Amino acid sequence: MKYYAIIVAGGKGTRLGGGIPKQFRLLNGRPMLMYTMDAFFGARRDINVIVVLPEEHIGYWQSLCDEYGFNPKYSIAKGGGSRWESVRNGLALVAESGIVAVHDGARPLVSPALINTAFDTAERFGSAVPAVAPVDSMRIIDKDGNSRILDRDCCRCIQTPQVFSSEILVEAYRLPFSECYTDDASVVESAGGTIKLIDGEKNNIKVTALQDISLAEIILNGG
Amino acid sequence: MKYYAIIVAGGKGTRLGGGIPKQFRLLNGRPMLMYTMDAFFGARRDINVIVVLPEEHIGYWQSLCDEYGFNPKYSIAKGGGSRWESVRNGLALVAESGIVAVHDGARPLVSPALINTAFDTAERFGSAVPAVAPVDSMRIIDKDGNSRILDRDCCRCIQTPQVFSSEILVEAYRLPFSECYTDDASVVESAGGTIKLIDGEKNNIKVTALQDISLAEIILNGG
Repeated sequence: MKYYAIIVAGGKGTRLGGGIPKQFRLLNGRPMLMYTMDAFFGARRDINVIVVLPEEHIGYWQSLCDEYGFNPKYSIAKGGGSRWESVRNGLALVAESGIVAVHDGARPLVSPALINTAFDTAERFGSAVPAVAPVDSMRIIDKDGNSRILDRDCCRCIQTPQVFSSEILVEAYRLPFSECYTDDASVVESAGGTIKLIDGEKNNIKVTALQDISLAEIILNGG
Repeated sequence: MKYYAIIVAGGKGTRLGGGIPKQFRLLNGRPMLMYTMDAFFGARRDINVIVVLPEEHIGYWQSLCDEYGFNPKYSIAKGGGSRWESVRNGLALVAESGIVAVHDGARPLVSPALINTAFDTAERFGSAVPAVAPVDSMRIIDKDGNSRILDRDCCRCIQTPQVFSSEILVEAYRLPFSECYTDDASVVESAGGTIKLIDGEKNNIKVTALQDISLAEIILNGG
């Protein structure tokens, strides 16, 4: 069986300031994306990692790899105008049938244990998507603009890696793009696939704001 | 018009370690609950603050107030076996008709601006509940144990303060307890009330784990 990981670092967002896209920002002095990739290399030695980067960042990333002596074996795909397009470009490099994880480059704290559980589960059930219960009460807004409570015990916040058999994922990514696609589970679901949820990790945060970098460092340092 | 704030610090949880309930844990060297209370005193000079504490913690809290020279004017109600019971005990001290905010003691970073917006909105509409869009994709688990995607754009993570006219809140808290009550909006909704959502604040985090204390300090320190 072949194992793939598509790591989506396609964002050009410089919301974190300093003009540096978030996937290259430093955690304890080292670019975030290197932690993310290391988690996958740490999970499986036989893994095929495909990193999706905006074309204009590839040179910068390679200079970072030189600077930090980061030289594992992996492939690079070009990012697209949306996350969906970036994943599709990564999928084009999945050469053989197997199991494919799709992961946010901005989730550097995923554990190798979660990655392995996700691969094992997807191998058995066709999919594996990590989920955690929300901390807050949840509400949903209906078409009239009114809101009603959602049973929090039934809600899940969805993380990555989202892992699928390559046949299921490739087939789903043949569908045309929809604005409803917020993750890979939603793409597979639109193609008629079912989603197997597994337990995510509280520490598997998505780094979207400056303070998330500080939080990620606290977690890395054992806080 | 009378303005009340019921600050629920009823938890006996010592999940954060050290045997100290979370509402007394230090942020930058000062008990969390003092920050929470200060936000309400900072919002309105005429506010009537009611702090709900487990009976066995009241003495400890008063010794902390002496130690830190914290001596604003407020009332103390005894905590109950559930959050619902704690709020009900606090409501029993709401002596006159007015507007009542209910707030988690463990949300110390709420801004006075949000508190004032919530009071103003509840005065106009009868309720005001702060909400923020989720960062992650969301799914809901149905009775068969299968999950389906929720439109993230329609989901909201609910915060506090949840603010209501006293008539609405008192009436709703006359209903018998239900396990569905995860917050005050759900209690009011069960009594037939409608909920007006307002924009919450990303920094208005609920401190539930040790790393949240570090994050709260980062935010306090301008991170």
